[in-house]
Amino acid sequence: MKTEKKTINSARLTETLNTFASFGKTANNGVTRLSLSKEDIDARTYFNEQCEALGLTVQLDDLGNMYAILPGKNPKKPPIFMGSHLDTVKKGGRFDGVLGVAAALEVVRSIIDQGIEPDTPVGIINFTNEEGARFEPSMMASGIIAGKFDKETMMKKTDPEGITFAEALQASGFVGNKANRLDSARAFLELHIEQGPILEREQLEIGVVECVVGMCCYEIEITGKSNHAGTTPQTMRSDALTAANLCMTAFHQELAKLDSELVYTMGRFTVSPNIHTVIPNKVVFSIEARHKDESVIQEVERIIDTVVEEATLSSKATKLWGRDTVWFDSDVVNQVEQATTDLGYSHKRMVSGAGHDAQFIAGVVPTAMIFVPSTGGISHAEEEYTSWEECVKGATVLYETIQRLIN
Amino acid sequence: MKTEKKTINSARLTETLNTFASFGKTANNGVTRLSLSKEDIDARTYFNEQCEALGLTVQLDDLGNMYAILPGKNPKKPPIFMGSHLDTVKKGGRFDGVLGVAAALEVVRSIIDQGIEPDTPVGIINFTNEEGARFEPSMMASGIIAGKFDKETMMKKTDPEGITFAEALQASGFVGNKANRLDSARAFLELHIEQGPILEREQLEIGVVECVVGMCCYEIEITGKSNHAGTTPQTMRSDALTAANLCMTAFHQELAKLDSELVYTMGRFTVSPNIHTVIPNKVVFSIEARHKDESVIQEVERIIDTVVEEATLSSKATKLWGRDTVWFDSDVVNQVEQATTDLGYSHKRMVSGAGHDAQFIAGVVPTAMIFVPSTGGISHAEEEYTSWEECVKGATVLYETIQRLIN
Repeated sequence: MKTEKKTINSARLTETLNTFASFGKTANNGVTRLSLSKEDIDARTYFNEQCEALGLTVQLDDLGNMYAILPGKNPKKPPIFMGSHLDTVKKGGRFDGVLGVAAALEVVRSIIDQGIEPDTPVGIINFTNEEGARFEPSMMASGIIAGKFDKETMMKKTDPEGITFAEALQASGFVGNKANRLDSARAFLELHIEQGPILEREQLEIGVVECVVGMCCYEIEITGKSNHAGTTPQTMRSDALTAANLCMTAFHQELAKLDSELVYTMGRFTVSPNIHTVIPNKVVFSIEARHKDESVIQEVERIIDTVVEEATLSSKATKLWGRDTVWFDSDVVNQVEQATTDLGYSHKRMVSGAGHDAQFIAGVVPTAMIFVPSTGGISHAEEEYTSWEECVKGATVLYETIQRLIN
Repeated sequence: MKTEKKTINSARLTETLNTFASFGKTANNGVTRLSLSKEDIDARTYFNEQCEALGLTVQLDDLGNMYAILPGKNPKKPPIFMGSHLDTVKKGGRFDGVLGVAAALEVVRSIIDQGIEPDTPVGIINFTNEEGARFEPSMMASGIIAGKFDKETMMKKTDPEGITFAEALQASGFVGNKANRLDSARAFLELHIEQGPILEREQLEIGVVECVVGMCCYEIEITGKSNHAGTTPQTMRSDALTAANLCMTAFHQELAKLDSELVYTMGRFTVSPNIHTVIPNKVVFSIEARHKDESVIQEVERIIDTVVEEATLSSKATKLWGRDTVWFDSDVVNQVEQATTDLGYSHKRMVSGAGHDAQFIAGVVPTAMIFVPSTGGISHAEEEYTSWEECVKGATVLYETIQRLIN
């Protein structure tokens, strides 16, 4: 007979998630909790209270990141961190970000409840402004920690009302010392909803995330000539929309030949002058593609260049940005996978198509992520949904992994 | 030896066109002369002065339309009218509309100069608000005359500053009696720039316009589902832009099989939510088509319905409006063609793809139009250009045709 595993308190986790969901609750059961807003400050205050009630030390760094630490047997040893973010987009959901913080809190509560004394410190991180919904860019605070963003530049970023990030941070009361920033640790683990449909479609309980995929994003600009829609024969037109349509078709044809895991999107598309009686003289559209293999992204870039070069009208492709695939720490990923296997949960190794604080933290600390299913793949919307059972399974994998790492 | 034909004074015509071009002249040699604006009132005042100096009677109707009449031998006989409009779009050209008024003025001046006493009255009309650039719709005053638009509704139309058409009309001082409206006449002739590239391409001097083509205009709406661009596999997407791309391709394929004179345009195209990282959930675009044969337009409508029915996502086609081809009076058209032939000008019978006051007046009075070339097919732009020589040829055809009609 197998030994009963020590596990988390699922009722307490759901209660905690419900409490967090009350901070910024929207009419349709979603959440609006923009970074450093009153709602975010309420959520931070609640998180702080819960941690202090557990006897954890809560530290703040100069970016408003919160670190709640259980010292363990050897407070000087490199800590093991878990966490995510408490901010949401406008009319977002009840799971994105907060699940990783609430589950981490539940893991620490369970450790304490069960009288486990970790060999190393165990901590929970709440990263500031992951969504970038109030202050762009997203993953701002983890990006500064990782040296990806310049702090002074970020501090001047403004919200739509002209309030700077620095002002909002100061006003929140959640500012501490730069010395408290995450700089070294045994590991960082982020539990998050998938925000995609793969686990649901494949009826899997857990995603063991290997990487955040690399991507490239281009802007295509096609220039034609406007003329009167009624008086210009078809053969004498330089219709930018017709040319753009041919480009889009070519992109679909060529990109479909690449790896089946490639995702690509033309999401932004504007036509000028956009009048029904005038032949369009300009189309500008975005095309972005994501894949874990650098060689596939390179192939995408070659296709974009070729298609634009062969366009029927004057066209240019401008690379707006790109990022390389961030591979998580193989040891920590293996630990997550082993824990999942031992728990008997169905799972697969997978990639993250979305960005997360973990991708920046991976440059500082050995990192891995755990995904749980998103119903319909929906996120950043009030309809975002992951069942309590699925949340509990994710938190259980987190707990199991932490237990392997703390001894 | 052929008898030297009596002809117009080309220097005087170009001087008149230059004077009109000074009312609302823009930095780049274009014209902004919105209907009933100060610039339009200046142009009207100049026109009125020139007509009165010739001894013409200038009448106004209740819509601000101006009728300058040379009584001729039999003032009670149905008059022959020529004309067009003096208003322009914002940053329009020096020829659209005003050429038809200035040439008519030159024709009457030449009649008087040359001591011709017409058997019937000969008049010049300046129609109010043809462009619809200040008060929508275009061809407003001729449309009211023809019973196409309701006067009370039109009077309430406002410009971007909230001024009604009625207010602007009253303030202009150019309001007369409804009894003066055009109601019966022997003929109406409108000389106009082609606003298309056909005459220039075929190196022809004159277009003998047979009709204003019929058209249909649809709005296509395609509904998909937004999802995260990074996390949603290609096979699980309901991308409205991808579906729209396929529809556009099908439209091009099918419509290209129809008559070569068909013109069709997708001019307005909007994508939602129009964010590069989000799969589009909606595309709405316009498709309009124009052809002189009703059967071709019917075929277009069948294709639109079929393509939309077979779209890969939920789609609907809404017919925004349509209009039948307006055929000009065959007798008057023949007179124009005969006059052109006799003058030795190269020409062709052609259609008008754009709308003109003449298309509404054709329902009231036997009507025809004369086109002269537009360089590059450009109109409604400061670059609009027709050489003085081409303008003179158009006015000469107008004069020659009038001479045939007045006796």
